[in-house]
Order: sequence, then C-alpha cells, then structure tokens
Amino acid sequence: MEKKEEGVKLLGFWISPFSRRVEMALKLKGVPYQYLEEDLPKKSSLLLELNPVHKKVPVLVHNNKILCESLVILEYIDQTWSNNPILPQDPYQKAMARFWAKFVDEQILPVGFMTLVKAEKSIEVAIEETQELITFLEKEITGKDFFGGKTIGFLDMVAGSMIPFCLARAWECMGIDMISEEKFPGLNRWIKNLNEVEIVRECIPPKEKHIERMNKIIEKTKSA
Amino acid sequence: MEKKEEGVKLLGFWISPFSRRVEMALKLKGVPYQYLEEDLPKKSSLLLELNPVHKKVPVLVHNNKILCESLVILEYIDQTWSNNPILPQDPYQKAMARFWAKFVDEQILPVGFMTLVKAEKSIEVAIEETQELITFLEKEITGKDFFGGKTIGFLDMVAGSMIPFCLARAWECMGIDMISEEKFPGLNRWIKNLNEVEIVRECIPPKEKHIERMNKIIEKTKSA
Repeated sequence: MEKKEEGVKLLGFWISPFSRRVEMALKLKGVPYQYLEEDLPKKSSLLLELNPVHKKVPVLVHNNKILCESLVILEYIDQTWSNNPILPQDPYQKAMARFWAKFVDEQILPVGFMTLVKAEKSIEVAIEETQELITFLEKEITGKDFFGGKTIGFLDMVAGSMIPFCLARAWECMGIDMISEEKFPGLNRWIKNLNEVEIVRECIPPKEKHIERMNKIIEKTKSA
Repeated sequence: MEKKEEGVKLLGFWISPFSRRVEMALKLKGVPYQYLEEDLPKKSSLLLELNPVHKKVPVLVHNNKILCESLVILEYIDQTWSNNPILPQDPYQKAMARFWAKFVDEQILPVGFMTLVKAEKSIEVAIEETQELITFLEKEITGKDFFGGKTIGFLDMVAGSMIPFCLARAWECMGIDMISEEKFPGLNRWIKNLNEVEIVRECIPPKEKHIERMNKIIEKTKSA
C-alpha cells in the first residue's frame, strides 16, 4: 500500500466543487496526497501541461499517471484503493449512482446556474426548472441518511460538493430560497447529515470566505 | 446465465448513436434482447414512463430494472455479463476509456454539430475547432487497431457510433471533408477496421437510408 500511495498529487481550486469531491474521496480512503492550489482564472503551466484537453482542475497525478474529470477520478480512486468503498458493489445500484451523478453535473448545474445570471428566461422560470430537477433527488434521498445509504458514497460526494456547498451558497447570496425545508425535507436532512461528516467539513470551502468571494463576483456581474 | 438474460428490452431509435452503441454491447456479449423502436420525435408513453428524467432513448430494461444514459448502460452491461469484456480491467486504462468517451459525447458532439447548423461562429471556425478535438483522438488511436487494442471495446463503441456512423455521414452530406485520410490516417484505418466488425455492421444505420434522412433534415433546416 505504501508504495501505491507515494506520488499522489492533486491540482485543485478551493471553490471548485469538482476539486472538493476528489479531496473528499482521497480523505475517505486515507490516501496521503500533495495538494497544489491553482490560482484560477490564471492557469499554471503545470495545469496546461497535465490537462491539455480541458485545461481544468481537478487533475490527479498518481505514480506519473495523469487523470482528469472528477467523476473519472472518483472511480479510479475507488478501484485503486479498495478500502471504504465509494461506489455500491451491486451493478444496478452502481449504475444508479452514476446516473444521478451525471444528472447533478449535466442538469442541475447548468439549469441551477441560470438562476444566477442574466438569462434569456426569467429568474422565476429558472428557479422553477431547477426545483423540478431537485425534486428528482428529493425522491431518491427520502428515507435514507445518505444517497450511499448509512455512510457517504459517490453520489453524496458529487451532489454534496455541487449543491449545498456550491450552488446553494450562491442562491443564498442572491436571496433565493431554492431548497426550502418545506418542499425538500429529505434533502435538508441529508445536508445536515453531510455537515456532520468530518471529511466533508474538512473539504468544503470555508463558508464566510466563500460567500465573500461570491458576493464580489455578483457585484462584478451587476456592474458589467 | 439463462435466467439473467430473460427480460432484456431495449428502447432505441435507429439513427441514435446512443442507441447504436448499446446494441453493439448487447450483441458483443451475446445477450438476447427485445428491441423496441421508438418513433422519434414522437415519444411513446412507455418511454415517458421508463425515463421520466430525460425522456430519451436508449432505455434498457433488465429484469424490471430500468437503466438510462448510454454510458451508464454500457458499464452495467459489462459488469452484468462478464464475457467479452468491454472496458479494460486496469484502473488507469479504464479511466482513460471513460475520459475519452466523455470527450466524444461532451466535446466532439456539440462542437462537431455546430458545423451543421446556422451557427453564431462561421462554419469554417467550427470545422477548425472540431478538427482540433479530433486530433486528440488521432493521437490516441495511432499504432492501434482499435481504441480497445486488438478488438473493439467501450471507447470504440462510443466513438464509433458517434463519429464515423453519425457525424461523419452528416459532414459528408454537407460536403465537409472533416476526417481526411491525409490529416487523420490513424482514424481512417480505425474506421476501416470498425467496418469489418460484424456486430458493428449489424448495429449501424443503413448508410443510404441514413443519408436520405439527413438530406431531408438539411433541406428542412435550409427552408426554415
């Protein structure tokens, strides 16, 4: 194991949900790693060299092997370090975790983001569309502590990094009550559960600093 | 095995590359299945019931378990029927197959599609951008018969269904020489190899009928 764990490096960015979820997985597995913070939107020559296709974080380097794309990296980590499994073992449960992870990144993120920008559609329509999508996740979490069951897993890391600790903070800055306790009791309970997990607390952006940064971005957008 | 293979149904559409790749996987594994053709753009009530999230093909039903999203379905098929593996076993090779599959669906498809529509950018710029992306795949295939090595695998099904047997046919209709032999010798060799694989030939849309349908769509777009 020791040799395997040598030479794990992660290029990340402190507010990137894609980076946050990879750190969660490494910490859950207890893999020692060197964390290299990118100073985005500038891109280091190392980042451009390691990820010439997307030029984005996160990038994981493991024994000179270079991995990009957070969902691909999470699967790699889970297969390489088999303790504390992240993905379910059952093929159907595993497929469902992958399906909803894609849904978070490809549906909730772009649709939810439209509530934060000057959109073609009105903000109200964007909020309604986002809540329709979130309703699918509410159904999935109902009756469970985590999407992964009793402990956090793949989908908790993916949805957790993206929704409560990224999009929801931006919604809060904008005064949007997107995930109300009344409409989404299951998700609210899940968010409380996530906040109690030590590796989650260690990996998410500090709230005050995060909100401050978001407010600056919002002000810039308004004055643009 | 026999019990497992009972009750496999696939909802697909004959020109959907996402459906084509799933049929390739089922045929490679030798899984008997019932194919239900959707008459898109109409959507059957069965499709809406089985895939309420995306309302899209393909949908695989296996012993009453419902699976959507072609990449998720391919992984499920590979884990459920372990003969003729589709994905590499090595964690890094597997990660690379997943990475390039995402690249095909999330980069090559949307960028390559821009060459076919009245775009904000000029067609010439869209062609150049598409060729830049295709260059990454050329590098990956150089020196290999298939992305999967000596036989077809996950990435061959994903890239094969999307590029030569979908986008390239549309480019041909538009008179765009996107994947020229001169610029992309490795990919041209790969396409020849794909054409020699029986299950590929069985699963791709008949070329004449496909081109005819595409020309109709192009004419409609022009007169719109």
